[in-house]
Amino acid sequence: MPARNFADALLAACRRKESQVVVGLDPRLDRLPAEFRPAGPEARAAESVLAFNRAVIEAVADSAVAVKCQIAFYEQLGCEGMTAYAATVRYAREHGLIVIGDAKRGDIATTAAAYAAAHLGGGEGGADDFVVDAVTVNPYLGSDGVLPFLETALATGRGLFVLVKTSNPSSVEVQDLDCGGAPVYEHVAGLVSAWGEPHRGPGGYSPVGAVAGATFPEELARLRTLMPHAPLLVPGFGAQGGGVEDVLPAFDSDGLGAIVNSSRGIIFAWKRAPYAQRFGEPGWRDAVRAAAADMRARLWEATH
Amino acid sequence: MPARNFADALLAACRRKESQVVVGLDPRLDRLPAEFRPAGPEARAAESVLAFNRAVIEAVADSAVAVKCQIAFYEQLGCEGMTAYAATVRYAREHGLIVIGDAKRGDIATTAAAYAAAHLGGGEGGADDFVVDAVTVNPYLGSDGVLPFLETALATGRGLFVLVKTSNPSSVEVQDLDCGGAPVYEHVAGLVSAWGEPHRGPGGYSPVGAVAGATFPEELARLRTLMPHAPLLVPGFGAQGGGVEDVLPAFDSDGLGAIVNSSRGIIFAWKRAPYAQRFGEPGWRDAVRAAAADMRARLWEATH
Repeated sequence: MPARNFADALLAACRRKESQVVVGLDPRLDRLPAEFRPAGPEARAAESVLAFNRAVIEAVADSAVAVKCQIAFYEQLGCEGMTAYAATVRYAREHGLIVIGDAKRGDIATTAAAYAAAHLGGGEGGADDFVVDAVTVNPYLGSDGVLPFLETALATGRGLFVLVKTSNPSSVEVQDLDCGGAPVYEHVAGLVSAWGEPHRGPGGYSPVGAVAGATFPEELARLRTLMPHAPLLVPGFGAQGGGVEDVLPAFDSDGLGAIVNSSRGIIFAWKRAPYAQRFGEPGWRDAVRAAAADMRARLWEATH
Repeated sequence: MPARNFADALLAACRRKESQVVVGLDPRLDRLPAEFRPAGPEARAAESVLAFNRAVIEAVADSAVAVKCQIAFYEQLGCEGMTAYAATVRYAREHGLIVIGDAKRGDIATTAAAYAAAHLGGGEGGADDFVVDAVTVNPYLGSDGVLPFLETALATGRGLFVLVKTSNPSSVEVQDLDCGGAPVYEHVAGLVSAWGEPHRGPGGYSPVGAVAGATFPEELARLRTLMPHAPLLVPGFGAQGGGVEDVLPAFDSDGLGAIVNSSRGIIFAWKRAPYAQRFGEPGWRDAVRAAAADMRARLWEATH
């Protein structure tokens, strides 16, 4: 029996929850609520992060369709951090959330296959600590770096999101270089489309998604056109400046085909308006819950 | 007191050991000598990898200036694999080897800073499990993705190697796109040169190195010219097809400024000519030792 198609599972989850919200679990130690902040150098930072993540997952499980774990924040805590990452992934899945590993891995051939096994499963060692539903992948090395992820994703029913256009200011330095009248990222979009096209599921989408920055809405519209079968993961919402209007071009005519990430805007909602005023730090769980629910409602209403 | 400059430490180590050899510790479970191969699903793969690595490190410590640990092969073994990675890094450093973490990480801003803390130290959590002397970095996100690594490297006396041109066939799909008469990778080389130039050490090199694939020698010569202050990490030697003649353009007039990696060609030397015939699997340690020593001699003689 062939594995399920990740894109169809994602579409079904969006419809069921009426949500396109991805909550970024990027726990910075110095921003955690006081109850979780490690007390001193002896304190167990990774345990603090895990406890915080569990509370966030409980607060957003009804509103979000997925969480995106930024693995860098766990890697910096060493082996204990990676254990906290694995436990966070498990906890999110137990709460019915799709889990995206924001690892931005990229390497070639058997090395890429090893990364794919690490994050999408099916590896020779059999370890599944870091296995998620989809992983982000860097395209700088070309097909050799991406196809091993696709092969694994097809075998395990999981997915990938290839970095096409990122939302940071200096993304222009490489991604916007003009190559024969089109920027580099449009060439990469063409690759993404070609990689995924043969693997479309019944819903029309393939397991090869794309990360498409929301800083410039007209770019987003163009990317949607260039990659009609790629689920789009749109970062940059909220704290990074993007609003609902900015991300609308990512969606198809059914209001689907894209998911939108907010990290700080949700997990640290109690630090910023309007949630700081309504809840403050003592009510931080309610602030997180409200921020996720508001984002879900705003996006779904704007697209349906 | 400012931290030492990584490039000067690397130059000094090359001179002292008369070596430009980097041994890639890319342990694939199915290629380990029989004595290390896990016996079944119950076996501890990560322990096998660590035991193998220790034996390789002992065999190459005299000939190699550095080891390069491909973190993907540890990540695929989950939390235990990351523990084996940390132990491998420690063991290599105890044996006087410079350790390069081949992680090819790339992200932006505070996330890049978290990766930098994970691999180059100085982080808020204080964890040093994965800290190495230099880490490989992917440039697709531009300065936002690289400068946090540089900042950390300057503070901790460590270094980075930015992917400029990789040695895999499909690298042409993105890296060789023609941008105004020059390929993307030459633009990236210009960025690497600009990032490192203000931070040259007394030996003339900066802590911002570059990964420069050896598949095409004329490209390597051009990259050496475009990045006069960047230590070059040259992959693709041995099993990937590159020979001594192919990597010579990477070196400066003193025969320094570049280090050359071989992974399978050394750690699995007993599987291939001429070492298979001379040693066979029972003599695998001697094969590894001989392959590293031969590579050291061939490179040093060709450049001095």
